[in-house]
Amino acid sequence: MMKHMKVAIIGGSGTVGGAARAALEADNEVFALSRTSSPAVDLTQPDTISAALEDIGPVDALIVAAGSASHGAVEELTESSFVGAFSGKPLGELTAFARGLPHVKDKGSITLTSGIIGRERIAHGALAAMANGALDAFVQAAATEMPRGVRLNIVSPNVLQSSPQHHRKFPGLAPVSDEAVGRAYVRSVYGLDTGRVLAV
Amino acid sequence: MMKHMKVAIIGGSGTVGGAARAALEADNEVFALSRTSSPAVDLTQPDTISAALEDIGPVDALIVAAGSASHGAVEELTESSFVGAFSGKPLGELTAFARGLPHVKDKGSITLTSGIIGRERIAHGALAAMANGALDAFVQAAATEMPRGVRLNIVSPNVLQSSPQHHRKFPGLAPVSDEAVGRAYVRSVYGLDTGRVLAV
Repeated sequence: MMKHMKVAIIGGSGTVGGAARAALEADNEVFALSRTSSPAVDLTQPDTISAALEDIGPVDALIVAAGSASHGAVEELTESSFVGAFSGKPLGELTAFARGLPHVKDKGSITLTSGIIGRERIAHGALAAMANGALDAFVQAAATEMPRGVRLNIVSPNVLQSSPQHHRKFPGLAPVSDEAVGRAYVRSVYGLDTGRVLAV
Repeated sequence: MMKHMKVAIIGGSGTVGGAARAALEADNEVFALSRTSSPAVDLTQPDTISAALEDIGPVDALIVAAGSASHGAVEELTESSFVGAFSGKPLGELTAFARGLPHVKDKGSITLTSGIIGRERIAHGALAAMANGALDAFVQAAATEMPRGVRLNIVSPNVLQSSPQHHRKFPGLAPVSDEAVGRAYVRSVYGLDTGRVLAV
């Protein structure tokens, strides 16, 4: 069977990116890009994004699920905490967005990734809330001005069932399956939505 | 009549900070801090924040209304656009939060400032949405972990009536009066709210 779409997943080796990959790879040609893939993509080296996507050729869908959340007690935050939290996640995702957009086909899609800490309160979560809030707000605004019919959404997953080491940090929240998270990316890639924060 | 509270406003010489000042200065001892005040506060030089607040002594309320919004077409954004947008507003406000917190009295308050571009779509507004979204999300999360009963809110104003040069960028939105904006700061400073995005 012919694969339907060409899909690039930056952060495709991570937990969330892996869920997206698992949901999409049966029916699509999926390129999982990371610092250890070939071609390698390191979001702190933006030219690696452009080079990898140039190498792959125009994609129908770009998914970005990279970066790590910062944590800290409110009383202990410093200016470098904020710079680190911004650099650690939103900056890399937004850079991938900007570098990726020219490589997405007309009427294709870009899907970024935030997380529940932008929506629910978690101990020491203010930095991650800042980071995820920046991404959620960007997507909702930028989607209204996307060129060439390219759609833009963001998946905001709860803690994953497959990451039990993190469950105790999310008391009372129901961990979600990789399949549920994968379906949100499928919805963004195949569906009509744009400008949506797809909460899972 | 004795002044009720000691209030520091960082960005007190700007349009929004000025609205806060006008609403509060009749009944309170207000210190409007900026790059041109004495003591001077430059948010890119965090030690100036600490020094000015040390000089003033513990405050009942700290208001931060500083920074400028970045604008750009979605197709023209680069990694430096995102760094600039973050440095231009959220980083300075968050730094003022972190440096200011030790100088706020028990049960006092901190009030940050975002803006409507985090809530409504404006042409070339994705960067400002990102910046304001970061701040709104931070405040909602950090408020739940504030020490010593210090409250934390953020005022998110629409375009001001007193800035007619900006009105055409906000088609169909109703410009708000300085008085209405000032009342939001009064509500944050005198009221019971915490963790609120006070939309005006």
